[in-house]
Amino acid sequence: MPVFTDYLWFNTKKRQEFIRITDDVAEIVRKSGVHEGMVLVSAMHITAAVYVNDWEDGLISDFQEWLEKLAPAGLPYRHHQTGEDNADAHLKRTLMGHQVIVPVTKGTLDLGPWEQLFYAEFDGQRRKRVVVKVMGM
Amino acid sequence: MPVFTDYLWFNTKKRQEFIRITDDVAEIVRKSGVHEGMVLVSAMHITAAVYVNDWEDGLISDFQEWLEKLAPAGLPYRHHQTGEDNADAHLKRTLMGHQVIVPVTKGTLDLGPWEQLFYAEFDGQRRKRVVVKVMGM
Amino acid sequence: MPVFTDYLWFNTKKRQEFIRITDDVAEIVRKSGVHEGMVLVSAMHITAAVYVNDWEDGLISDFQEWLEKLAPAGLPYRHHQTGEDNADAHLKRTLMGHQVIVPVTKGTLDLGPWEQLFYAEFDGQRRKRVVVKVMGM
Repeated sequence: MPVFTDYLWFNTKKRQEFIRITDDVAEIVRKSGVHEGMVLVSAMHITAAVYVNDWEDGLISDFQEWLEKLAPAGLPYRHHQTGEDNADAHLKRTLMGHQVIVPVTKGTLDLGPWEQLFYAEFDGQRRKRVVVKVMGM
Repeated sequence: MPVFTDYLWFNTKKRQEFIRITDDVAEIVRKSGVHEGMVLVSAMHITAAVYVNDWEDGLISDFQEWLEKLAPAGLPYRHHQTGEDNADAHLKRTLMGHQVIVPVTKGTLDLGPWEQLFYAEFDGQRRKRVVVKVMGM
Repeated sequence: MPVFTDYLWFNTKKRQEFIRITDDVAEIVRKSGVHEGMVLVSAMHITAAVYVNDWEDGLISDFQEWLEKLAPAGLPYRHHQTGEDNADAHLKRTLMGHQVIVPVTKGTLDLGPWEQLFYAEFDGQRRKRVVVKVMGM
């Protein structure tokens, strides 16, 4: 059973940025040689998310506005007593989820017609990683 | 190592509907012949969720009312400028989660006493799919 | 391919409690003998969560306050007509997520620098379980 591991690196220019990663993950699956199995895509930093949804700029804006409403920046979070200022980023990433598993069928990502994988950065402007682990046969 | 893939299809009568799928997934695991492993159950459409929680109608109503409060329909979402009217369905499914992994132990779903699998439709009245992928030995 | 299953038991003193379980999961992975693969860590009760985030008491307080705001206790939930009083615990655990998958690379949990695994109990003071399933080679 092949198990194949790779990492995606990000260093966003803006503090918050949503980046489509479907093709990057598909390429890692291709390299893995796995024909039938699963691929785990998981943020390794706790202020970033990995999620599956629509590749449509309006909806991405809607997500960002919604997250700001449910998990606002600028509140007097206790976490900020440590010198940090990113508690909202921890909450936002929790709402979006930090990992997805995609089934691999006949060598390709078994996604529905509108499913796209995204990396959502909520505290960027520094190097961060996503682990991609493919397992199957 | 067997890897077994199947799909569940839904075409709900109402726009929003919650459907218990524990038995359907258990049947696919039985057919797979996997004795020890995991089964991924993942919505292939981006306005539907798959989640694990209680099989109790009151709680399901509570979930629906709560989702309407946190991710209301009828707001002037940017996504609607594309002609769509379902941005809230994308947000609701994000809160519930779009996939679960269930451990398979001794040939059966290794679930706690109250754990039940549900498909939650937020923009139904058309054909939609859930992928079920079993992996193990 | 080894598949290894173990369970963690909890019986919290307080109704709500957040417990770090990174070392417990790492120990199960060590016992499994899996060198390359994945480990599923999943709450078997529907009023508890398993999540990955920071090991910092201030942030844990922020999470708890935030969950109380988004999914308050004490509302007249329909679920309470069954005699239960814990509908908010079902909602809170949904926000946090009930399971994570951690990649296992070179025999250890492949976690980022600040990633820690937590069990979040929202209706404790009784025995509850988390299933830990390791799969790989």
